[in-house]
Amino acid sequence: MKIAVLGAGGWGTALARLLHLDGHSVTLWGHNPAHLLDLKTARENKRYLPGIALPESLFLEPDLSIASKDAEIILIALPSRAFREITCELPAVSPIIISATKGIERDTGLTMCGILEQNMPSSKAVAISGPTLALEVARGVPSAVVAASSSSSAADIAQQLLHRPAFRVYSSSDVIGVELGGALKNVVAIAAGVCDGLGFGDNAKAALLTRGLSEMRRLGVACGAQPETFSGLSGVGDLTVTCFSKLSRNRRFGERLGQGESVEQVLQTMEMVAEGVPTAYSASQLARNQQVATPIIDEVCSMLYEGKQAAQAMEDLINRQPKAED
Amino acid sequence: MKIAVLGAGGWGTALARLLHLDGHSVTLWGHNPAHLLDLKTARENKRYLPGIALPESLFLEPDLSIASKDAEIILIALPSRAFREITCELPAVSPIIISATKGIERDTGLTMCGILEQNMPSSKAVAISGPTLALEVARGVPSAVVAASSSSSAADIAQQLLHRPAFRVYSSSDVIGVELGGALKNVVAIAAGVCDGLGFGDNAKAALLTRGLSEMRRLGVACGAQPETFSGLSGVGDLTVTCFSKLSRNRRFGERLGQGESVEQVLQTMEMVAEGVPTAYSASQLARNQQVATPIIDEVCSMLYEGKQAAQAMEDLINRQPKAED
Repeated sequence: MKIAVLGAGGWGTALARLLHLDGHSVTLWGHNPAHLLDLKTARENKRYLPGIALPESLFLEPDLSIASKDAEIILIALPSRAFREITCELPAVSPIIISATKGIERDTGLTMCGILEQNMPSSKAVAISGPTLALEVARGVPSAVVAASSSSSAADIAQQLLHRPAFRVYSSSDVIGVELGGALKNVVAIAAGVCDGLGFGDNAKAALLTRGLSEMRRLGVACGAQPETFSGLSGVGDLTVTCFSKLSRNRRFGERLGQGESVEQVLQTMEMVAEGVPTAYSASQLARNQQVATPIIDEVCSMLYEGKQAAQAMEDLINRQPKAED
Repeated sequence: MKIAVLGAGGWGTALARLLHLDGHSVTLWGHNPAHLLDLKTARENKRYLPGIALPESLFLEPDLSIASKDAEIILIALPSRAFREITCELPAVSPIIISATKGIERDTGLTMCGILEQNMPSSKAVAISGPTLALEVARGVPSAVVAASSSSSAADIAQQLLHRPAFRVYSSSDVIGVELGGALKNVVAIAAGVCDGLGFGDNAKAALLTRGLSEMRRLGVACGAQPETFSGLSGVGDLTVTCFSKLSRNRRFGERLGQGESVEQVLQTMEMVAEGVPTAYSASQLARNQQVATPIIDEVCSMLYEGKQAAQAMEDLINRQPKAED
């Protein structure tokens, strides 16, 4: 199959390599030609996926129209802020688009498949999501994701395309649930990182993760998701890895806030995008619009956008009065 | 209030201390008089809760009938294998029993509150469960649990008794769900530890945890639990901390199996009970009786009771064909 992968970060590179190793003709596109040239020369993505060799026959193409031309499948692993702009430039008729991007668009409240519905209404969209640290996928240690589509044939094709013993692919029809799980968990992971930075223990982090999951589910259900999706790979699975792994960018972002750095300091010195930062803002917007209570998401938003101190935000969460679990 | 705490392990000691610091008259009982004498002399539980000072006015009593006499609340934090025997010896009329023990009885398939219903039918039983590593609770870092009872007044009393900012207590009426979550997560944690021992990454562990949660929920629902309880503190919350924390005994048990030690070697050298070991057996029995598919629990059972190699058990799980998420 001819496949275009858009986004030469860690996740796009890992997925392009995985598909290429399976015998597909894969072209990897990135917006920065100099970065692509580095990949071509070194045959390694030293910046985002260090230590993983890239085969010679994996195409690296800086021109989007060439990269996507005649592709039977386009897999997108761009930062969410570039998603609308880049997908506007794609050929109007692309049979299947797989989105591996996790985010919620500001003001519209749309997930990536929601943007695709507007931009590319004739394509079948599939969202993949789950606990997938890119470096681990590239190293071939076992991982599992869920592929969600409103088209069961497209979900099946994505499942068959990506599935192998070390990369298990489950299927789902709950696109909005799978996408919101993947997006919102980054916000909760920032709060979990704050717990780490403040020196709290694993009990506190697990409790915060659980209450965060409850917010994710409440907000998701208000947006039309199935509640049980948040107990799956794109919900609990992705949330736990993002909250507990040392490799998680969003957790690390929160950890540095908890250790006393300012938002600006962290933003200026982070190599990669922490998707939880823009998502906190759009999730808080979405929750207000849907009239859903999301105290953890709101506190993260206050830390990121209103200068609230991390310790104060956590104290305000801890002092809320618990009642029955929901 | 006059409170008896039964079980002088880490969890019983931490809870007795917490209640005592709040001004209650607390008596801690343990089955081993020599161990209690050590606590009395050192004013520290060096074996199970090192580094935590025990106040002079916390009573330590080796006689069960004296310890439990006139207690308004009896809190039980015994290993599950001792639960039936000890609760048989308690005064028939005890107003409220709080169980902090997590397990499933072999052959009967009963949880601890199920045993209490048989042994002490006139008492009101409350189960507390959640992500609570004893050492962290004793150190006063924020933790959260759920208190479940079929009597809402008993749940309220337990909540009021135990709740403070650093120990948040939510309430629930789903006793069987809360208890099965707390018991079954120890079995999944053994499998998660095997992942660690085999050198798998965080993706694999998060996927296993998610699929394990799905088994817990399926089996729980078959036994009458509410599915959403498994997304709460006693389900997801306790499961994540037990699968990810270095302090977790059950995870550590699995890790040593994954590193190549035999079950006998690990059992002989572990100071504390890993509840997941007996629970794996009774959970597998229960799943067969309820005709529920529990592949992860069954593989743990095979490792523990049939000598199956850890690497083979994991390979058999990874090679199962995924379909839709459930």
